[in-house]
Amino acid sequence: MAAQAETAAASPIGVFDSGLGGLTVLRRLRQHLPGEDFIYLGDSARVPYGTKSPETVRRFALEDVAFLSRFAPKVVVVACNTASAVALPELRARSAAKVVGVVRPAAEQAVRIAGAGPIGVIGTEATIASDAHRKAVAAIDGRIEVITVAAPLLVPIVEEGRPQDDPVVLSVLSDYLRPLQRCRPTVLVLGCTHYPLLARAVGKLMGPETHLLDPAEAVAEVVEQHLRQRGLLRQRRHEGALRCFSTDTAERFAGLARRFLGHEVDDVQWVGTDELTGAGREAVEA
Amino acid sequence: MAAQAETAAASPIGVFDSGLGGLTVLRRLRQHLPGEDFIYLGDSARVPYGTKSPETVRRFALEDVAFLSRFAPKVVVVACNTASAVALPELRARSAAKVVGVVRPAAEQAVRIAGAGPIGVIGTEATIASDAHRKAVAAIDGRIEVITVAAPLLVPIVEEGRPQDDPVVLSVLSDYLRPLQRCRPTVLVLGCTHYPLLARAVGKLMGPETHLLDPAEAVAEVVEQHLRQRGLLRQRRHEGALRCFSTDTAERFAGLARRFLGHEVDDVQWVGTDELTGAGREAVEA
Repeated sequence: MAAQAETAAASPIGVFDSGLGGLTVLRRLRQHLPGEDFIYLGDSARVPYGTKSPETVRRFALEDVAFLSRFAPKVVVVACNTASAVALPELRARSAAKVVGVVRPAAEQAVRIAGAGPIGVIGTEATIASDAHRKAVAAIDGRIEVITVAAPLLVPIVEEGRPQDDPVVLSVLSDYLRPLQRCRPTVLVLGCTHYPLLARAVGKLMGPETHLLDPAEAVAEVVEQHLRQRGLLRQRRHEGALRCFSTDTAERFAGLARRFLGHEVDDVQWVGTDELTGAGREAVEA
Repeated sequence: MAAQAETAAASPIGVFDSGLGGLTVLRRLRQHLPGEDFIYLGDSARVPYGTKSPETVRRFALEDVAFLSRFAPKVVVVACNTASAVALPELRARSAAKVVGVVRPAAEQAVRIAGAGPIGVIGTEATIASDAHRKAVAAIDGRIEVITVAAPLLVPIVEEGRPQDDPVVLSVLSDYLRPLQRCRPTVLVLGCTHYPLLARAVGKLMGPETHLLDPAEAVAEVVEQHLRQRGLLRQRRHEGALRCFSTDTAERFAGLARRFLGHEVDDVQWVGTDELTGAGREAVEA
């Protein structure tokens, strides 16, 4: 039993996203859990998920989790808001490991901060259409007003690498934030892993009364708490390892990763989408 | 021999694109060739191609062509500018059918119209990085100046469905077109199948001296000429059939197709990306 717990504690934490955005979540996880080993999968060849049908997002997310399962992770973190919003029950049903999404932790923290005040959410088309954030807040406190806005251009704007004071960035943000500026939410959930890279510009437009909530912090706390409660935390003197897999080329992934992670990544490997599909099929048949 | 020619004439024309944009090319093809049957494949589950590495675009495009090959097409039209720009030699090497891309026909028509004047090109990140349009123009006339601009936000803007006079659309277009406005090109190639849906706004910003070139017309002429020369044209009293396949759900495809095609599509079937991958593998092994 003790040996088993030790093996499980030594297992890595799996993290996946439709692309590179999830590295903003990985970054926070590594700050909270420096001794842990991480496996990151970015499905960059099929990115984005947020403009696709729930059926397609579910299929891709199941393949992503099946691929990560090969590394026998102790926890799988669904860093992608879209996949968390539309696929979490299916992912949990098919995974031996604990699966943590980003929507519920964000909703819980938003309610803690907001009190009775309204909560705003910006996210991808699929995330907002799923109404996942509204449902998660309502499950905690049905009286809180939730205002949601789909902001499909923000992911390509971040990936294009424009500075936050670029006139195009401000023009697009002003357009999306207009209904939220009118409601003056106490908290605004940045409901997509790309959005923290626009936090300064969003903050300027929303004003100091609105607290911007990057779900990464809440997710890291949930994962830490889960591991601690089960005695699965890995405490080491040296930093844990990070292995990244990308379905687009490793070079492209490594080149863009710095912006999201804050430092270089050395260990990036390409994995073909057909290999993911294979992993998905094995998982369904198993 | 005569029977064989008849069989080939009765074969459909295959068209593929990373998503729905290629329907603007299909529309023009059907106007030119009303008696022909068409098979259209939109890889909407993995759209866009234009922000991905050439290696990934080549792999996806090979799978798309392998899937279309199952219908024994007499011609395959690569409606996607990105795939035409980075994958055409590989697609030709692997296809039994004639493969027509969109870059060379556009370059030829641009040179015909431009005379000695400079030619502008807007396209996706991958299309512009490949320099395919510049090379195609240089192969015809090395003295013509070509100015190219990557415009990655235009595809998501079109897919978001904003009207052409929307302030965000104008702000983004003004930003991309600034270097082109300075050079005053005689012809501006709309080097992505989504861009014709922004033609009015682009025309207003570029002014009446710049001719906007939608490659679809030139592509339809090349395909018609090819079929006529080989006696493969199908002339019938009634309109040919159209079958569409989409890797994202058929419902989503059908819902969005109208904007690009100008009318409803009835016959849309879902095809999984794993089936495409299978088709690709068969083609490579054959």
